[in-house]
Amino acid sequence: MFVQRTLRQAVKAHATVTSASHYSAKNTELVFGKTFSDNMLTVEWEADKGWGTPQIREYGKLHLDPSAVVFHYSFECFEGMKAYKDKDGKTRLFRPDMNMKRFNNSASRIALPRFEDEELAKLIGEFLKVDDRWIPKGRGYSLYLRPTMIGTQESLGVGASNKALIFVIASPVGPYFPSGFNAVSLLATSDKVRAWPGGTGDAKVGGNYAPCIKPQLDANKEGYQQNLWLFGPDHQVTEVGTMNCFVYWKNEKGGKYLLQNELVTPNLDGSILPGVTRDSILALARQWGDFKVSERKFTMSDLVKADKEGRIIEMFGAGTACIVCPIKKIHYDGIDIHIPLDPSDKTSQAGKLTKRINDAIMDIQYGDVEGPKGWSVVV
Amino acid sequence: MFVQRTLRQAVKAHATVTSASHYSAKNTELVFGKTFSDNMLTVEWEADKGWGTPQIREYGKLHLDPSAVVFHYSFECFEGMKAYKDKDGKTRLFRPDMNMKRFNNSASRIALPRFEDEELAKLIGEFLKVDDRWIPKGRGYSLYLRPTMIGTQESLGVGASNKALIFVIASPVGPYFPSGFNAVSLLATSDKVRAWPGGTGDAKVGGNYAPCIKPQLDANKEGYQQNLWLFGPDHQVTEVGTMNCFVYWKNEKGGKYLLQNELVTPNLDGSILPGVTRDSILALARQWGDFKVSERKFTMSDLVKADKEGRIIEMFGAGTACIVCPIKKIHYDGIDIHIPLDPSDKTSQAGKLTKRINDAIMDIQYGDVEGPKGWSVVV
Repeated sequence: MFVQRTLRQAVKAHATVTSASHYSAKNTELVFGKTFSDNMLTVEWEADKGWGTPQIREYGKLHLDPSAVVFHYSFECFEGMKAYKDKDGKTRLFRPDMNMKRFNNSASRIALPRFEDEELAKLIGEFLKVDDRWIPKGRGYSLYLRPTMIGTQESLGVGASNKALIFVIASPVGPYFPSGFNAVSLLATSDKVRAWPGGTGDAKVGGNYAPCIKPQLDANKEGYQQNLWLFGPDHQVTEVGTMNCFVYWKNEKGGKYLLQNELVTPNLDGSILPGVTRDSILALARQWGDFKVSERKFTMSDLVKADKEGRIIEMFGAGTACIVCPIKKIHYDGIDIHIPLDPSDKTSQAGKLTKRINDAIMDIQYGDVEGPKGWSVVV
Repeated sequence: MFVQRTLRQAVKAHATVTSASHYSAKNTELVFGKTFSDNMLTVEWEADKGWGTPQIREYGKLHLDPSAVVFHYSFECFEGMKAYKDKDGKTRLFRPDMNMKRFNNSASRIALPRFEDEELAKLIGEFLKVDDRWIPKGRGYSLYLRPTMIGTQESLGVGASNKALIFVIASPVGPYFPSGFNAVSLLATSDKVRAWPGGTGDAKVGGNYAPCIKPQLDANKEGYQQNLWLFGPDHQVTEVGTMNCFVYWKNEKGGKYLLQNELVTPNLDGSILPGVTRDSILALARQWGDFKVSERKFTMSDLVKADKEGRIIEMFGAGTACIVCPIKKIHYDGIDIHIPLDPSDKTSQAGKLTKRINDAIMDIQYGDVEGPKGWSVVV
């Protein structure tokens, strides 16, 4: 399918690897994506030579010609994943195969080269050994990994890039909610659209992100933390900020011969990001079998109706950064829809199912519970 | 509206400006966007300081942290414009006010800062004085200018970039069609969609471009030069590759009391790029008054019907690179639509109106004919 000349070469830490500690921040002071580990992993590609030798080298600036196509035509895609320390001090990745597969799908969508899935996961494993001490210990702490591919052709012609660079950088991060869950309020966005059929909504390409900032700032200005993305004249619910979206509600018809509740998230129709956390939540919920699990379209009208009928139980966003992010309010079409959290605990900022999902995924990520085969991979 | 502290500062060519000639290529060997002039114009911005002092400095690499948001979230927008040498050796820009305005609109769409329109045009004028000898002489030759703005915040958090950089680079270019027009054939794309209402189709942001390559390569594989972008279930015609799209045809009803022919291009509904060439063609055609000029939606069904009824006269793409690019064939839904070129000259690769528009715009760009006020600006 694609030639990759260097895969069978042994990966050796490059001469410039540094072991000088820059890691002085306390775990509690970690800010997402601001501090980076000593080194980075890089692999260069040229159309006529294929992939070069992977290097693990000191973290440092990229030196690129101003004509490099990444600056002009957005030849860029990335992944977000985390390395966890388990109680035995071993390093674990969570479903890295899914990240690697999506990375290649994203690259293909923008005519960048593919890199063999399993080899990239192995290279990341080597990189993690070199920067092992940058993986923070403790539940909720992890080393965030950012595999990125950019097009580096030095020419302004609009066409496939004849050069590319993969780089993987790593940032130690703390819990998304340092002092317990904090439910967010959302402003539904109707004037801007995140993605559309035939676009790039199902690829993790840079171009999906910058256009999201304005709606996010608009939401902030109105006092909401995030925006809720809608699509189509019927205002289908699609994503929450940069997260997948889940609703847990009572079935419209209920009845004792049916599973009374349903967990629903938009189906992967080409404009929804196929989130690793999304997929994991669906798999766990189906395994539990306590309620109906659906991947299908639903609209703001459905939500408004369910709210009026008191059927909404919980709602949350899902992604690698937070796992789950509880939602407490949505402003839409002039009204506020108040989403319940945990009725049995007025101080709680998350619903029972939201917490159950969060715990179950963390248990697997940190190796405390053995999850489905291949989910928690010891490096 | 926005603070710009350095605008009133005199622009001085920076100490590192180079005058060593790298320009050895013959005019006839120029390749678009591969050779760059000696220097580049840069201006840095920080959220808490505003814009810094503009610098004209030696063309060279950008040194950016791998966490810079331009690599991950596509904080990037650009312009394409050209500087022309007129017969008196003076340097002219074509409607730079439109480029500057669109540059700011694009920046705003992705939460990058605005830079005062007229000041940027003046800075580009200063830059052109320094690199004057890089502007090739001769009709059809020009110095292509690429103003670009990127977000340079060194942090992976998804939010507005707290740092930005404007850079302007310049590449001497020859005629798009070195040996006379060369009409292109198009493959209509129905599985991918370039833009969507509420998206970024009307902004010149990087994210619009990389996703276009795959459809372009698909077209190439099938033996077509470019792809034709469609939109919606009724297959509205939107753009041609990276160009605006024009059809010149006989009115369906005709009749001696109506202007019998119509030049039509899709209206600016938010998903069409507001091209400078597009706007100029519309203005000239309206001034001529020889035929009806319309900005409105039209579909592939309309084109197929017009083809069957023998009403299509000409069709062309329009953009800064080529001015106009004649179209000779469209493959759609299993059939080839053959578009006429010039029936009075079987060897011609462009229709009469296409040629007339091309000549009229070039006449103004090179200062041979005085166009509408403000169109051709002497630097």
